[in-house]
Amino acid sequence: MLSDLFARLEQLYPELVNIRRDLHMHPELSYQEVNTPQKVADYLRALGLTVRTEVGGRGVVGLLRGGKPGKTIALRADFDALPIQDEKQVEYKSRVPGVMHACGHDIHTSALLGVAHVLSEVREQVPGNVVFLHQFAEEMPPGGAKAMIEDGCLDGVDEVYGAHVWSTEPYGTIGVTDGYTMAAGDGFEIDISGKGGHGGQPHLTIDPLVVGCQLVVNLQQIVSRRVDPIEPVVLSVGSIHSGLAANVIPDTCHINGNVRTFNQEVRGFVEQQIRQITEATCEAAGAVGTVRYRSGYDAVWNHPEQTQVVRRLFQHLIGEENVKNLDPSMASEDFTYYLQKVPGTFFFVGGRNPEIGATYPHHHPMFDADERAILLTGKAFLSIVFGGDASSFPSPIESATAQG
Amino acid sequence: MLSDLFARLEQLYPELVNIRRDLHMHPELSYQEVNTPQKVADYLRALGLTVRTEVGGRGVVGLLRGGKPGKTIALRADFDALPIQDEKQVEYKSRVPGVMHACGHDIHTSALLGVAHVLSEVREQVPGNVVFLHQFAEEMPPGGAKAMIEDGCLDGVDEVYGAHVWSTEPYGTIGVTDGYTMAAGDGFEIDISGKGGHGGQPHLTIDPLVVGCQLVVNLQQIVSRRVDPIEPVVLSVGSIHSGLAANVIPDTCHINGNVRTFNQEVRGFVEQQIRQITEATCEAAGAVGTVRYRSGYDAVWNHPEQTQVVRRLFQHLIGEENVKNLDPSMASEDFTYYLQKVPGTFFFVGGRNPEIGATYPHHHPMFDADERAILLTGKAFLSIVFGGDASSFPSPIESATAQG
Amino acid sequence: MLSDLFARLEQLYPELVNIRRDLHMHPELSYQEVNTPQKVADYLRALGLTVRTEVGGRGVVGLLRGGKPGKTIALRADFDALPIQDEKQVEYKSRVPGVMHACGHDIHTSALLGVAHVLSEVREQVPGNVVFLHQFAEEMPPGGAKAMIEDGCLDGVDEVYGAHVWSTEPYGTIGVTDGYTMAAGDGFEIDISGKGGHGGQPHLTIDPLVVGCQLVVNLQQIVSRRVDPIEPVVLSVGSIHSGLAANVIPDTCHINGNVRTFNQEVRGFVEQQIRQITEATCEAAGAVGTVRYRSGYDAVWNHPEQTQVVRRLFQHLIGEENVKNLDPSMASEDFTYYLQKVPGTFFFVGGRNPEIGATYPHHHPMFDADERAILLTGKAFLSIVFGGDASSFPSPIESATAQG
Amino acid sequence: MLSDLFARLEQLYPELVNIRRDLHMHPELSYQEVNTPQKVADYLRALGLTVRTEVGGRGVVGLLRGGKPGKTIALRADFDALPIQDEKQVEYKSRVPGVMHACGHDIHTSALLGVAHVLSEVREQVPGNVVFLHQFAEEMPPGGAKAMIEDGCLDGVDEVYGAHVWSTEPYGTIGVTDGYTMAAGDGFEIDISGKGGHGGQPHLTIDPLVVGCQLVVNLQQIVSRRVDPIEPVVLSVGSIHSGLAANVIPDTCHINGNVRTFNQEVRGFVEQQIRQITEATCEAAGAVGTVRYRSGYDAVWNHPEQTQVVRRLFQHLIGEENVKNLDPSMASEDFTYYLQKVPGTFFFVGGRNPEIGATYPHHHPMFDADERAILLTGKAFLSIVFGGDASSFPSPIESATAQG
Repeated sequence: MLSDLFARLEQLYPELVNIRRDLHMHPELSYQEVNTPQKVADYLRALGLTVRTEVGGRGVVGLLRGGKPGKTIALRADFDALPIQDEKQVEYKSRVPGVMHACGHDIHTSALLGVAHVLSEVREQVPGNVVFLHQFAEEMPPGGAKAMIEDGCLDGVDEVYGAHVWSTEPYGTIGVTDGYTMAAGDGFEIDISGKGGHGGQPHLTIDPLVVGCQLVVNLQQIVSRRVDPIEPVVLSVGSIHSGLAANVIPDTCHINGNVRTFNQEVRGFVEQQIRQITEATCEAAGAVGTVRYRSGYDAVWNHPEQTQVVRRLFQHLIGEENVKNLDPSMASEDFTYYLQKVPGTFFFVGGRNPEIGATYPHHHPMFDADERAILLTGKAFLSIVFGGDASSFPSPIESATAQG
Repeated sequence: MLSDLFARLEQLYPELVNIRRDLHMHPELSYQEVNTPQKVADYLRALGLTVRTEVGGRGVVGLLRGGKPGKTIALRADFDALPIQDEKQVEYKSRVPGVMHACGHDIHTSALLGVAHVLSEVREQVPGNVVFLHQFAEEMPPGGAKAMIEDGCLDGVDEVYGAHVWSTEPYGTIGVTDGYTMAAGDGFEIDISGKGGHGGQPHLTIDPLVVGCQLVVNLQQIVSRRVDPIEPVVLSVGSIHSGLAANVIPDTCHINGNVRTFNQEVRGFVEQQIRQITEATCEAAGAVGTVRYRSGYDAVWNHPEQTQVVRRLFQHLIGEENVKNLDPSMASEDFTYYLQKVPGTFFFVGGRNPEIGATYPHHHPMFDADERAILLTGKAFLSIVFGGDASSFPSPIESATAQG
Repeated sequence: MLSDLFARLEQLYPELVNIRRDLHMHPELSYQEVNTPQKVADYLRALGLTVRTEVGGRGVVGLLRGGKPGKTIALRADFDALPIQDEKQVEYKSRVPGVMHACGHDIHTSALLGVAHVLSEVREQVPGNVVFLHQFAEEMPPGGAKAMIEDGCLDGVDEVYGAHVWSTEPYGTIGVTDGYTMAAGDGFEIDISGKGGHGGQPHLTIDPLVVGCQLVVNLQQIVSRRVDPIEPVVLSVGSIHSGLAANVIPDTCHINGNVRTFNQEVRGFVEQQIRQITEATCEAAGAVGTVRYRSGYDAVWNHPEQTQVVRRLFQHLIGEENVKNLDPSMASEDFTYYLQKVPGTFFFVGGRNPEIGATYPHHHPMFDADERAILLTGKAFLSIVFGGDASSFPSPIESATAQG
Repeated sequence: MLSDLFARLEQLYPELVNIRRDLHMHPELSYQEVNTPQKVADYLRALGLTVRTEVGGRGVVGLLRGGKPGKTIALRADFDALPIQDEKQVEYKSRVPGVMHACGHDIHTSALLGVAHVLSEVREQVPGNVVFLHQFAEEMPPGGAKAMIEDGCLDGVDEVYGAHVWSTEPYGTIGVTDGYTMAAGDGFEIDISGKGGHGGQPHLTIDPLVVGCQLVVNLQQIVSRRVDPIEPVVLSVGSIHSGLAANVIPDTCHINGNVRTFNQEVRGFVEQQIRQITEATCEAAGAVGTVRYRSGYDAVWNHPEQTQVVRRLFQHLIGEENVKNLDPSMASEDFTYYLQKVPGTFFFVGGRNPEIGATYPHHHPMFDADERAILLTGKAFLSIVFGGDASSFPSPIESATAQG
């Protein structure tokens, strides 16, 4: 029976690719999603689902009541894009300057719509209920998940599952991690105030640009020297901006960065170290530095029981050798907040394919993924909804055709 | 007789302050001067001078033929402004967002117009001819001087003199320097190409931002270690820009800076060192750096004979104790090109006055100068035009009133 | 019966403390051990064991043939010291200037001698054979283990076990780790050649000291930016030496450091990065850098089956709550080479006790450990030798008295 | 008559070379001079001069009373060596390991002895008195000059002159500078206290070595950014020492350096900046830094009148084209203290000669000078003693033969 659903999903594949590419060409930034949730809601309504919009802001929640008894399972896809200029040379390249689906949320959305489509046609066979969580603003804390939960999106939900297409894993594989799977992701902004002046008279100024550069170099030591090497930590400075003219020493320097940790104690220590190093580095030059630290998403922790079940399902789906026990990722996700409410797990669907150039990391201007990940994500979700009946899965790798 | 001219100039002082403040409120960037040269030309024409406009582009040259035999002396004032946001709280604050007379060119222009005004009224007494060089685009190489010279502004000129109001010297003083007085000023741009990616996966990227910051720190050693300490050199990085989002590692980092030297050999060495350090710093990280070095103005060299004469005139004008032998300045000026054609000298008129908050360095958002420097600059120019008759100068400090 | 052995060990405690303190007062550097192996051999011989000396160089191996059938189990203790000045103020402080047991090998040796003592008295009850591996030169690669193995110390051995007193874990606990438990530890030396000269003429020199310092700062980015954050890596520079006089710029700068990794691929990458960064950093200054990278001990990998058994034994010995699953340590050990030959495990005996000031990290001039760790290490080894009969263990914590 | 003295000096040249080479092979460190002053005193006594030894410590002062009326003129040569390993491959290479005449004081001493020899033979012709100041400990503050002055070496002296062989100027030239000619030279020592530990556990330590390296990098900004670029300043770190073993993070880091300035205000500012930057850089890491700043010699200021006379004498001696107006040197000299008491001047005798490999900077392990500088220094001193009669000088360059 599940194999029939898989076959139906494959029939829908061209339509799902169209949906994905439409989203890709018209990406919308976090909290600014207008057309994307509209398209999602229209699609789900057309399938006959009960649909709530503006959930927690810009979220869309679809409800499909199955014809058989069972648990209420929530499946989540996020749909926001990033402030990155699309530099790929493809037909479906972003039409919005400086905005891009560089993280694959378009793939997630398309896959989840496909699942809804298939299930809506076999509603009587579906056990329990399925809740479709189409989430806004995953890329920017505080994120859409918290707001959607507060607005009731998990009410009555027994378990929750989410997937992310993953650029480092080859297409055809799924990655599963026990326990911590994604890091806590925090942001920080540092403003350095010096004293500007003529480029030829540095001694009459307090040069905030040199201080800022020195600070970026100094911050490296938090990871390299001060945190237990066994603790995975990332501190990345994402932007530095100072000065307008080559011959004018500027007044200020602005730095933005992010911090990834798993351990809550380490998280606090890194914040303290950023403050200490900033203060001292500025002091050395007579400048003044201020740090604003914004706690982002907590680390994502997969529930052991659900993770174990899902791993077994995926092994049936694509063969044991294609289900990997991934190391925890330093990326971060507000899926953590769903898992803090109800049990479930978050998994990774391989999207890498060198043959079509899908090899760039997430958030890269050249990022792309093998679109067949739509199909594999959909089949993974369908397997979860139907649970046990996994032994007769056909191989999705062989039956789907590579994207054009 | 010179004292009569000084008295007349003092009468004009309120008008000259108005001119200066009008320019200050309506600054125009280098090469974009439209209204400023128009105002200058109108003023000079109203005085009855022969006026050429669009000299070398946007320059204005006035000619006053004196009634007595003598040399043709050129006096120069520049009139362009800088891309700096005026942050002073004064009535005559710049009305143009992001553009500001932060270098005192408005003072120069006003002073030179005053000189023209006074001389136009005593034309018959004036020895030789006086050429009024109102120059555009001093702040940005290639600069207006070269173009105006090519367009003939020095034709027939025997000597040339220029003044700069100076924020580090107290009002009431004039600074004179023998030989090298201002530095050669060059610019450089560095582009660093790395490989962007997700902020949580630095190992999949080549982080150009960290490389850029390291480079700024490394460049310090050119001045601190590699150049003969007896040679005055400045290398200032004026801007660094990299990245858009806190959680995205960028692809590129852009750096702009400038270099000041006197010695031509050192100038070449510094350029070579910038290239060498950039290349190696990038190589250490697997990034690629490209350097564009733009030679700016040559160092300004005052002719000894004219400088000696002028020093004596100024000692008569304001007393020996108020004429300083200034150290060479690291700032740079395209006045050098006039001096490469005809003899002359370039001097500095004190503009600093803590009582009215005129203490900020040139190119600072709070820059201002004691407006009485208009008067002292004018008197200095008048002295030069009339040469010897300097012994009966009244003290301009006592006779002028401080600005409000 | 095991409890009788524990009781006997406790009787021997004062003697074992004396042994430990004697070793502590007379530490010997790696490969220079003369008196220490002599003392060990004398002690073992006095117990009636078969003793081989100069095993692989300076190792001592004792053999005790038990009266009952069973496996041949090897127990290992290392006995070399470090080039560190003892700064503790205790009666048993090192008498050798600049040499110190700052890693607890004296504790290991004393404990293993105690075990030999107890077992030698109940030889008929001992199952199988027990091989006592008293190893020299653990602190400095290539290390004594390899040489002793090549010299036959593991011939006929079925399993091997080793312990390390551990300064971060409280006395009374034992730490066990599955799989990787200690890191590969490599060394590197960097020589930087510049061009010396007079301190007042830096431009005539190539200053290798500044280059060396910059290099140390630059090397931080290997860990902070270039290695997958999920991979534990340490790069520590242990020494930098350059220059003799304050006013002479030196010719050379010498740097020594070490690298800790688990993953073999990361290990190679770090070496390559050290070379790349050294070369480029030197190039930026016109200096020449040479890197010698010395691969040290491989990572220590505990065999799962033996680790599982040992964990259970220790849980009986000191209670489940006192047996910790430690994170892998970044320290490194040549115990790895025993485990590459025969199965076994390496565990950590808590030595920390703030009440007696035993809180400093290993290799610190103030390092010390709670001496009762001798007793607990001994009981752990006895448990391993006797295997199953663990249920009747008395608590060693309650029965031993705190050290003096 | 002066030409006769020059001829006699040339006759003595082989003997003077022997003296120089003997000193070169047996150098003695500052304040540890025993045999050198003994040799000098013996030589002067043998000439019949009045000799005082142990002047101010280890100084030697010879007095020659001339037969004609005239001023009392002091001539000074220093005789201490440096803690540098001689790496030249010459027959007269230093026999003392780690000690070397790498600054040419052996040349000075030999030259001054030659002058004494010549004058002692024509005592009746010598105008006034000549005082021979053979000074100890020039290389290390507080220096021998102050102590010798306090011990009366300038009593009755009217003028004082000193020479330094100079490695950057070609043999055959003499350099003279008006006003400031050598810099003030100060020393500083920085101790950084961290917390040592195991190389694999940086997070349990405060790594003073990384802090020290960062500090050396940070100190570069004093010269590159914070001091007026027109002010010559050098800050050189001469030594950094931290750590003993590759796998032990050390407790401390020691840094030694020196500072060269002319302007007394800048001198104080640099000291303050060293303290500020050290404190803040340590603070950023939780380490503690202490700075000891030792003021060294003041800047050397040549008296205008004597300098003018000497310049003219030298122009007669070697031709106008061979007397250079040198830029001030960043090296430092306690000759300043003589000039603070009596008028005089300090000049530089070219010692560079690529043909014989004499091209290395002062304080370099390969330093050497053209030995004919002995002759030229001697002739310069003789010219000074005899003043006016300079017109008949033969060329010393042609008459002397190059060293072997």
